[in-house]
Amino acid sequence: MDFSDIARKVKEDSYQMACQSGQVRNRALVAIATALDQRKDQIFQANRTDLARAVEDHLPGPIVSRLKFDQGKLADCISGIHDLCQMEDPLFQTLLKRELDEGLLLEKVTCPIGVIGIIFESRPDALVQISSLCIKSGNAAILKGGREAAETNRVLFQIIHEAGTFAGLPHGFCTLIESREEIAQMLRCHESIDLIIPRGSNEFVQYIMANSKIPVMGHADGICHVYVDQFADPQKAAAIIVDSKTQYVAACNAVETLLVHKDAPAGLMERVQDLSKVDITFKNGESPEDFKEYLDYILTIKTVGSLEEAISHINRYGSHHTDCIVTENQENADTFMNLVDSAGVYHNCSTRFADGYRYGFGAEVGISTGKLHARGPVGLEGLLTYKYKLHGNGQIVADYASGKSSFHFKDIK
Amino acid sequence: MDFSDIARKVKEDSYQMACQSGQVRNRALVAIATALDQRKDQIFQANRTDLARAVEDHLPGPIVSRLKFDQGKLADCISGIHDLCQMEDPLFQTLLKRELDEGLLLEKVTCPIGVIGIIFESRPDALVQISSLCIKSGNAAILKGGREAAETNRVLFQIIHEAGTFAGLPHGFCTLIESREEIAQMLRCHESIDLIIPRGSNEFVQYIMANSKIPVMGHADGICHVYVDQFADPQKAAAIIVDSKTQYVAACNAVETLLVHKDAPAGLMERVQDLSKVDITFKNGESPEDFKEYLDYILTIKTVGSLEEAISHINRYGSHHTDCIVTENQENADTFMNLVDSAGVYHNCSTRFADGYRYGFGAEVGISTGKLHARGPVGLEGLLTYKYKLHGNGQIVADYASGKSSFHFKDIK
Repeated sequence: MDFSDIARKVKEDSYQMACQSGQVRNRALVAIATALDQRKDQIFQANRTDLARAVEDHLPGPIVSRLKFDQGKLADCISGIHDLCQMEDPLFQTLLKRELDEGLLLEKVTCPIGVIGIIFESRPDALVQISSLCIKSGNAAILKGGREAAETNRVLFQIIHEAGTFAGLPHGFCTLIESREEIAQMLRCHESIDLIIPRGSNEFVQYIMANSKIPVMGHADGICHVYVDQFADPQKAAAIIVDSKTQYVAACNAVETLLVHKDAPAGLMERVQDLSKVDITFKNGESPEDFKEYLDYILTIKTVGSLEEAISHINRYGSHHTDCIVTENQENADTFMNLVDSAGVYHNCSTRFADGYRYGFGAEVGISTGKLHARGPVGLEGLLTYKYKLHGNGQIVADYASGKSSFHFKDIK
Repeated sequence: MDFSDIARKVKEDSYQMACQSGQVRNRALVAIATALDQRKDQIFQANRTDLARAVEDHLPGPIVSRLKFDQGKLADCISGIHDLCQMEDPLFQTLLKRELDEGLLLEKVTCPIGVIGIIFESRPDALVQISSLCIKSGNAAILKGGREAAETNRVLFQIIHEAGTFAGLPHGFCTLIESREEIAQMLRCHESIDLIIPRGSNEFVQYIMANSKIPVMGHADGICHVYVDQFADPQKAAAIIVDSKTQYVAACNAVETLLVHKDAPAGLMERVQDLSKVDITFKNGESPEDFKEYLDYILTIKTVGSLEEAISHINRYGSHHTDCIVTENQENADTFMNLVDSAGVYHNCSTRFADGYRYGFGAEVGISTGKLHARGPVGLEGLLTYKYKLHGNGQIVADYASGKSSFHFKDIK
């Protein structure tokens, strides 16, 4: 079977998936949580196979540690599923109910986007998290995990698929693809796949954006800034810089470029080094190549002559992800937050707060630097769209054009 | 000046445009309405030049009539601008206000998308309407009109630009481009242009979607369906078919394919012909090529064996625009409306209702068949996004990771 045929089958099943009741979707989630727990030995065994091969292949330590799926990660996954069950059903919510005329009722109702292609890297828990989010939101998922986690992913997928279909979900509610060639095929299926969510490296996401007509939600790079204003409190500034850079250096919301006002408090970098538990390498920002994403303990520093210069720099060289001003001057803070064109604009706090959990969204689908659809940390609502339902009893437009009938637009609460 | 430089300048001005107060934006709208009225002779004269050339060039009648910009069209434009002024400011609206912890306040606030590229055909009133919508929503607009309306567009643009900048808008709040080559250049400016809204033929929109990384909002074709169920009222069915097909045959929401249940009431097509003031050519739908957009008095008819077959057909061959079921059976109506994957799903009313004005949105940006961002008829909200503002006083993530601080997530109404 060609992949485009598989995708078309998934598309057909996605219509059934879209109208499963919240009860059936929650039942499936509970069944999956139970099955994951019951079959944990099988999961851990598959994971040991992956881990052994990773060690044999001399994969880097951080990858091996992300690959590991143990009792703790399983417990997190299962508790995440139970949290999702507790959440209000995001589907079939009426966003607008308006009587256009007597007997002509317009409703705007939430519905799933349809078929979501998700490509993620080594962490097998991502497979569980993403498929549960898709179930809760009524979407069909096509999943492609990292090759190094192949055995674990296969077992997790089998468990999820068996439990989900047994609970009443259509066969195509989730599909695992395993080969790299299938990614290329998937990118061509713009008639069957509605959205791609890539979770991976900058280059990988850019490759996907450049090679598919399917809309992509996510971000390529995270070039976040901290701007230390003339009126900054030096202690706050140092703490925010250290946290933004070092609290988790590989995150997309870690700071990469520090902009310092020429009249900012002196001794700032000494404070930063004193406070930091690791050595940060400071680099002078002189050319556009210096304003990049390091994902490492390196920080580009540039002195700016004014608030306006800082804002221009961020809008030009940033990635519209998350940017912070440190200042005690409220007017400068407001100017910065209004003029910086990023998903997150922060005043006096670490860029590392840019995260769905920290925003209280409960579950995070990803972080988007795009401006259409969802922006910033995206919760379940990023997997939803809406449709308009118009209920009539024979109304035609000619009667409204001729003046025989007329609209009265009454919103119904 | 290269077009990419122009686009970059517009981008820079768009940040200023984004934080103009509602008062300034409304003042600009009023100034534009006044200037249009004061300089109407100049507009009509330019329009006469365009019309004379159109006649010389033997352009088709419908194009010439859309090209015409007279007192009536001017009055509509001016009254549209005044309506926009009356509307609530869509910017700076707080969508969410949440205390994450004491002194750490998250706000989700509406803001403009940024720079919108709009490409439209012969109607000069579109230029006025679109630039007013962009002003109201704080977006910078790059406008490309039809060549046949070049003189009228140039004058309208001058008036709008002079009045707008005089009222305080930044220079780049709107830009007119006139040559075809500039369209190709515009499509490459994905770093400066955030969204393209094409209003034109199917082929034109598909060309744009295929040749740009910039997100596109709109629709290529409108292949709308009416499905006449086994339990249809034949009189309602005939009236809905006639209205959907003939009330305005060139519209994207006109019906193109009629699906009829094999046991639907007899004599339906005779009723349709009796009711219609024009001859409709019926065509048997036998191959995929028959299920297309005619924008003419032609209707493809296909008999289906079941409701399910009708739904599958629509999901497969439709354009996810607007589709209607005619039935007196509520269960069948519900099934159809839940399973048909279109922006508009209708029960017992004409597909021609799919329109921002008829939905009571006040102003229509376009109709989108995409599922991300806006779907269906799109009002001002289609030109908006949001940003997250996080206000702190020195908070760092390390304190939350270590358990020293913790989130309490209090929504503030």
